[in-house]
Amino acid sequence: MCQMVVDQAVLAKQSLRAMPAGQRSALLRDMASALRAHAEPILRANQVDVSAGAATLSPALLDRLTLTPQRLEAMAVAVERIAAQPDPVGQIVEGRMLENGLFLQRRRVPIGVVLIIYESRPNVTSDAAALCLRSGNAVVLRGGSDAASTNRAIVDALRLPMDAAGVGGALGFVSATDRASIDCLVAMEGLIDLAIPRGGPGLMRAVTAAARVPVVKHDAGNCHVYIDSHTYGMEELAQAVVVNAKAQRPGVCNAAEKLLIHRDAAPRLTARLCAALAAADVEVRADDASRVLAPGARAATEDDWWTEYLAPIIAVKQVDSLEDACAHIRRYGSQHTEAIITSSIDAAERFSWLVESASVMVNCSTRFADGGEYGLGAEIGISTSKLHARGPMGAADLTTTQWVVRGAGHVRG
Amino acid sequence: MCQMVVDQAVLAKQSLRAMPAGQRSALLRDMASALRAHAEPILRANQVDVSAGAATLSPALLDRLTLTPQRLEAMAVAVERIAAQPDPVGQIVEGRMLENGLFLQRRRVPIGVVLIIYESRPNVTSDAAALCLRSGNAVVLRGGSDAASTNRAIVDALRLPMDAAGVGGALGFVSATDRASIDCLVAMEGLIDLAIPRGGPGLMRAVTAAARVPVVKHDAGNCHVYIDSHTYGMEELAQAVVVNAKAQRPGVCNAAEKLLIHRDAAPRLTARLCAALAAADVEVRADDASRVLAPGARAATEDDWWTEYLAPIIAVKQVDSLEDACAHIRRYGSQHTEAIITSSIDAAERFSWLVESASVMVNCSTRFADGGEYGLGAEIGISTSKLHARGPMGAADLTTTQWVVRGAGHVRG
Repeated sequence: MCQMVVDQAVLAKQSLRAMPAGQRSALLRDMASALRAHAEPILRANQVDVSAGAATLSPALLDRLTLTPQRLEAMAVAVERIAAQPDPVGQIVEGRMLENGLFLQRRRVPIGVVLIIYESRPNVTSDAAALCLRSGNAVVLRGGSDAASTNRAIVDALRLPMDAAGVGGALGFVSATDRASIDCLVAMEGLIDLAIPRGGPGLMRAVTAAARVPVVKHDAGNCHVYIDSHTYGMEELAQAVVVNAKAQRPGVCNAAEKLLIHRDAAPRLTARLCAALAAADVEVRADDASRVLAPGARAATEDDWWTEYLAPIIAVKQVDSLEDACAHIRRYGSQHTEAIITSSIDAAERFSWLVESASVMVNCSTRFADGGEYGLGAEIGISTSKLHARGPMGAADLTTTQWVVRGAGHVRG
Repeated sequence: MCQMVVDQAVLAKQSLRAMPAGQRSALLRDMASALRAHAEPILRANQVDVSAGAATLSPALLDRLTLTPQRLEAMAVAVERIAAQPDPVGQIVEGRMLENGLFLQRRRVPIGVVLIIYESRPNVTSDAAALCLRSGNAVVLRGGSDAASTNRAIVDALRLPMDAAGVGGALGFVSATDRASIDCLVAMEGLIDLAIPRGGPGLMRAVTAAARVPVVKHDAGNCHVYIDSHTYGMEELAQAVVVNAKAQRPGVCNAAEKLLIHRDAAPRLTARLCAALAAADVEVRADDASRVLAPGARAATEDDWWTEYLAPIIAVKQVDSLEDACAHIRRYGSQHTEAIITSSIDAAERFSWLVESASVMVNCSTRFADGGEYGLGAEIGISTSKLHARGPMGAADLTTTQWVVRGAGHVRG
């Protein structure tokens, strides 16, 4: 089953490589129309998934899973936006005339077959399919069991225009949702060119253990905000950033999960920040030093430092220095996004070099770590891998490059 | 043993991240001096390896393994060149002011700990160490058994200035040369950030099977030259390029291993090219159609199409069309480098899109696929992976990027 889907994707990738950007844009617009035209079966299928999950899923997960006419329209609009985005395929990344007269250029070309392994959100199905087509890749989608009916209905709609264009195989969908299907897919060396797992630590471990194909992980965001000692007069700014980073949308990967406060700033800020967070309905857990200043906070445990809550909870810790804060982040963090609040140029610079995170925010909210905010267009996710793509990953990151060298009979001496 | 070396590299990577480019350049110059100052023990150690290999190694491998005072001097000069190269660390790759006033920049930062697994050539030891230091990375070297004494002596010399600078741990050397040491190293998730295997298919299979860390392969080069039908009047050019691509240095990965000739060009070119290759001491193997035109050639077998000879041997095949040539290349090739000889713009363009190779040469020799020729400076090798780095891989490809976003209390609405 997996094998057949992947074989068709491999066959289709050649047609996609050869398809001009304009044709792919038109196809993307047709896919957006297909989502609208098939709203009824998609929403009906979603009702099946939501009913099945009602007993077992948390309210947050159930909300993620649920489609409404408005959410489906937003998915169609997202596909249209991707259709309007500049096409990365064929873009010249660099080029020059060499001394010997050879003309060198390096250009973006599709990667080939991209496998996306994801969990509950059905919008990933249309986003991922659209971004892969925008970058000239065939895609194989393997979604989670909670959204199985919804994903199938979305793919059925998106496939219609692709079938009509003769490239239906380039939108592969694996309906199996068991662990064995992951093991089988990520072992397909030479067929799958890139696997992108999006999900929690369990999925990452499963993929890492079985993978023989290259992987770019879209892992957890255990994001930190660090309040430096150089923050006199920045109390209001710090409060606004911390509350926004944690509470504006607690369920996403660029939300803050931890607050580290320099001991010199603690007397001015610990109680104030904890109160503001509590006022924003955030549960505050804290280490002993912080609880002296904010006695209302529950005691944090070792587990808290490791946990990505994805919920209105934050853990607060007092640190002795910027270096201590960075050591804590290196130990417990996920290298997704960290923020520093400071007036010191030197502190901001040292912080950004001492943490290895994909994004470092200086005096602004972690919530800005996002492909849309960075101006990359829609994103396939936020990479916590160090290779190939790091941070928000857009259509251009779904390409590789090819060197083309033009000569006139040049030989090497 | 492996664990201790890697732990020290992980510790040292923080110091290296914080070390300014000028200090790393000075350290590289000191490393070049150390190679010269320790020429005697290095050459003596090399004699031990050469004597031990004399009975078992092929003349080509024995030649690769052998160091002379001239070759050692060339290694020192290569390190000095890397010292003089622009430093990639901190380079701003992109940057802009966002509409909301946030100032965004994306800059190159070291990857962390890079593992290089390589086979017989001792110059890789100093090249890899120097390129990793140039890019701010700690390196762990795991060389082959044939060059074990030589590699150890080279590392001993290079370590002296690194120890003096307090970053000796950043040049790790694993003296074990068994398969188990590879299995152990490439499984060190979270410690090793990138593994680069350089070698034959056996090494690639071993690494792929055991790897839990990201891998960029420096695999075989089964490179093709395709002679298109649009080659009237290009007979001399075709001959010069084919002979250069095959015979100028047959033992390297960008040498041509296969010659594909369009059936319309065959009557003009097959006999001529086969004779020119034979005159350059190349053994020609050919398919039946080509042997009609060049009866001196031995019959090629299915194995020939798969083989990277790394020797003065070439296999010749007649194809019915450009598409057939590309299908052959996609099936048997290693996506390293292919060349086309043609006067047709259209054929050159179609060829470059239909093969997925890292480098495509139009009317010039495959031998130009090289970091030095492309102007990238010294190369760590030629990547046949599609992710992160493709084709010649220089110091900049040994970095990842970090987004730094500066605000003034910006929060997301």
